[in-house]
Amino acid sequence: MQKQQQLDQWVRAVAESGEKLNGAERRSFLKNGLALLGGAGLAGAASGTAAQAMPPGIPSWTRSLGSAVNTNPYGMPSPHESNVQRRTVEWLTADKIASVSFTPLADLKGIITPSGVVFERYHAGLPDVDPNQHRLMIHGMVDRPLIFSMEDLMRFPSVSMIRFLECPANGGMEWRAAQMDRLQFSHGMLSCCEWTGVLLSTLLQECGVQKGAKWILAEGSDGSHMSRSIPMEKAMDDALIVYAQNGEALRPEQGYPVRLINPGWEGNTCVKWLRRLEVGDQPWYHREETSKYTDLLPSGKAREFTFVQEANSVLTNPCPEKPLTKPGKIWVEGLAWSGRGRIKHVDVSFDGGVSWREARFTSVVEPRALTRFGVEWDWNGNPALLQSRAVDETGYVQPTYGQLRDARGSSSIYHKNAIHTWKLNGDGSVVNAQLA
Amino acid sequence: MQKQQQLDQWVRAVAESGEKLNGAERRSFLKNGLALLGGAGLAGAASGTAAQAMPPGIPSWTRSLGSAVNTNPYGMPSPHESNVQRRTVEWLTADKIASVSFTPLADLKGIITPSGVVFERYHAGLPDVDPNQHRLMIHGMVDRPLIFSMEDLMRFPSVSMIRFLECPANGGMEWRAAQMDRLQFSHGMLSCCEWTGVLLSTLLQECGVQKGAKWILAEGSDGSHMSRSIPMEKAMDDALIVYAQNGEALRPEQGYPVRLINPGWEGNTCVKWLRRLEVGDQPWYHREETSKYTDLLPSGKAREFTFVQEANSVLTNPCPEKPLTKPGKIWVEGLAWSGRGRIKHVDVSFDGGVSWREARFTSVVEPRALTRFGVEWDWNGNPALLQSRAVDETGYVQPTYGQLRDARGSSSIYHKNAIHTWKLNGDGSVVNAQLA
Repeated sequence: MQKQQQLDQWVRAVAESGEKLNGAERRSFLKNGLALLGGAGLAGAASGTAAQAMPPGIPSWTRSLGSAVNTNPYGMPSPHESNVQRRTVEWLTADKIASVSFTPLADLKGIITPSGVVFERYHAGLPDVDPNQHRLMIHGMVDRPLIFSMEDLMRFPSVSMIRFLECPANGGMEWRAAQMDRLQFSHGMLSCCEWTGVLLSTLLQECGVQKGAKWILAEGSDGSHMSRSIPMEKAMDDALIVYAQNGEALRPEQGYPVRLINPGWEGNTCVKWLRRLEVGDQPWYHREETSKYTDLLPSGKAREFTFVQEANSVLTNPCPEKPLTKPGKIWVEGLAWSGRGRIKHVDVSFDGGVSWREARFTSVVEPRALTRFGVEWDWNGNPALLQSRAVDETGYVQPTYGQLRDARGSSSIYHKNAIHTWKLNGDGSVVNAQLA
Repeated sequence: MQKQQQLDQWVRAVAESGEKLNGAERRSFLKNGLALLGGAGLAGAASGTAAQAMPPGIPSWTRSLGSAVNTNPYGMPSPHESNVQRRTVEWLTADKIASVSFTPLADLKGIITPSGVVFERYHAGLPDVDPNQHRLMIHGMVDRPLIFSMEDLMRFPSVSMIRFLECPANGGMEWRAAQMDRLQFSHGMLSCCEWTGVLLSTLLQECGVQKGAKWILAEGSDGSHMSRSIPMEKAMDDALIVYAQNGEALRPEQGYPVRLINPGWEGNTCVKWLRRLEVGDQPWYHREETSKYTDLLPSGKAREFTFVQEANSVLTNPCPEKPLTKPGKIWVEGLAWSGRGRIKHVDVSFDGGVSWREARFTSVVEPRALTRFGVEWDWNGNPALLQSRAVDETGYVQPTYGQLRDARGSSSIYHKNAIHTWKLNGDGSVVNAQLA
């Protein structure tokens, strides 16, 4: 085939450029390499997934020196990736000071969420906290009320955990069947970072918790004084007083210089810019655990203190932002997570839940962490209904919308973890299609 | 005690600010809270590690609204952390185009290295590669030479691994007893990220490796055409064609849009801006595996193809950049890693290796990944010699400088993994003190 000959010629030219560019052939190679630009053909494809790329010429960056080392003492993504950013939904909240921005899940890989694009949720805006002035106080039903500077906190044993963090309102718009048009907006109040800090139990031991103490109030130092009541069991289990995120100091948006992380629990309980922990014998019933962050049931009553984010999953490829460009083999992948522990099993359906295929895990599988899964699929070009269904190590199975609404009605805002459906159209485009 | 009374008063004032700020008492509280500023006392300390912080007043950010959500669609560290950055050593290389910058290890926590501060190493500067034009070619002893666009690569099954990446010259200045004055410079050509991509074995299978093929040449598309010969065993084991790092697209400094990662092997073999993989039956003996990246032995001969980065460790707190401020309990911690597999055991010494204490792991323990360890220590204020010693799952024990020089002399540049000593002075300062 003529195409194969052209390809072979190009392959040889590129190969020679690597082996000869330091020698006398440099000049003649460049001439030759560039001359090939116009006539280059297509690579032979061994299967549906195989390469079909048009070989370009020898690009400019191969023929020149780049920029010096440490031009950027703190590096940033390539300018070609400027589309990967947090975004807001204009109509969602009345004020940008008390609002949310969403993680661009469609463009992310693996399980770590880059700190720069972790979703934001503020109740009184993003404060600029001076770590030298910031203090964390523990008081109430303790033998020794104590105040910790950041330097004090660093003297205690440190622990690092990879854990997801999700706003309980993630996907909340879908309770009443609104269908957000992007993965970023349907599931983007979700993230997963390596969090480092001191176990809350370590600090409580230092203070001496008194008999009868059962709850802890965690309060932020931002203008909203965001506060939540946390049961002592969680405080003594894996609750972490966090000062670092993905290896470096906590980001301002995430509570710099110190926050609470309750692994697997509502993001709202993970109070940011943490300044105060009060130990008591009953919950405080503050604003953000009564008028908000409760689930209105069909009976008219509301569930409260529904801390755990139960098993959930979503496909990230394909998705509305990542349509398919052509039929053939593709890698269908997604994220699963459970506040109850490790993800044990994920199934994927291509026919709206009629039949299922087991996905495989392609990341570390940590408890209460995002878990990446995937499955190979040979798309025949027909429309399809794509779903994923997660099961965690406690045996909890992610419910359908029907099951979820049977149990909780449709007036909730929080804890939407139903099986999600992407409708793949024949042209490769993908839309949010809620199935019962 | 008067100090305790002042503290109690301040504790009450801060506590009340949280509970009453939304009510009528707001005005009177603020007055009261601010009035307390001058008279605040010290927290009572329960032990050597306990809090000693002077309580400040109610800070400005607690009494105001912060900035709106999504003010920064791609977030950055707090301005208070601007000191955490890559740095160069001016005298180390003749030209900043072919040079190195170092990871600020002293300020990092956990095991993930933030992408913005991962060390750099260029041989012809940092190229600005257009992912739409970039191609990866596989040719040579294969049935089907193929050229892959980035979109092609994304169609193959994806895998994510948390793995360290270290320049084999890390600490190379110490072979001849030079003692770098910071942890950043003594060990900072080191990082650990979650890498996502396609297993090289997957792509090789697509191309059909021919009988007798034993080596692969990996070549970069930057101006240096950096190239290394890789044995087929590694290519078929865990070598990864990587397009993402810590959840997002590979950073330009790390080879955007695609690089090779050979987990646990010399960073130099993990060719960046990867454009070509040639399959052959013998190594190529290119510049960067003959005149460089070989170890000159006392015999005058040089070791070559010494791929594995063997077990190593270093204490990150205390260290020259993190002196101790006072005696008492502190958390001594560090990083251990091995190119042979998982870290199994780390010991810490406070007397220059005479006696050892077992450290505990405080992060996930993945094979060929940085592993965070720590141990509590009650510093009595006397000078001390601090060391750490790592053992990996193969039983390999990190050597002393004496053992390393007995085996390899002192003319090497690469593969310095000796037990490192920090000398802690009575004033809390820390210096690099090489012990045999």
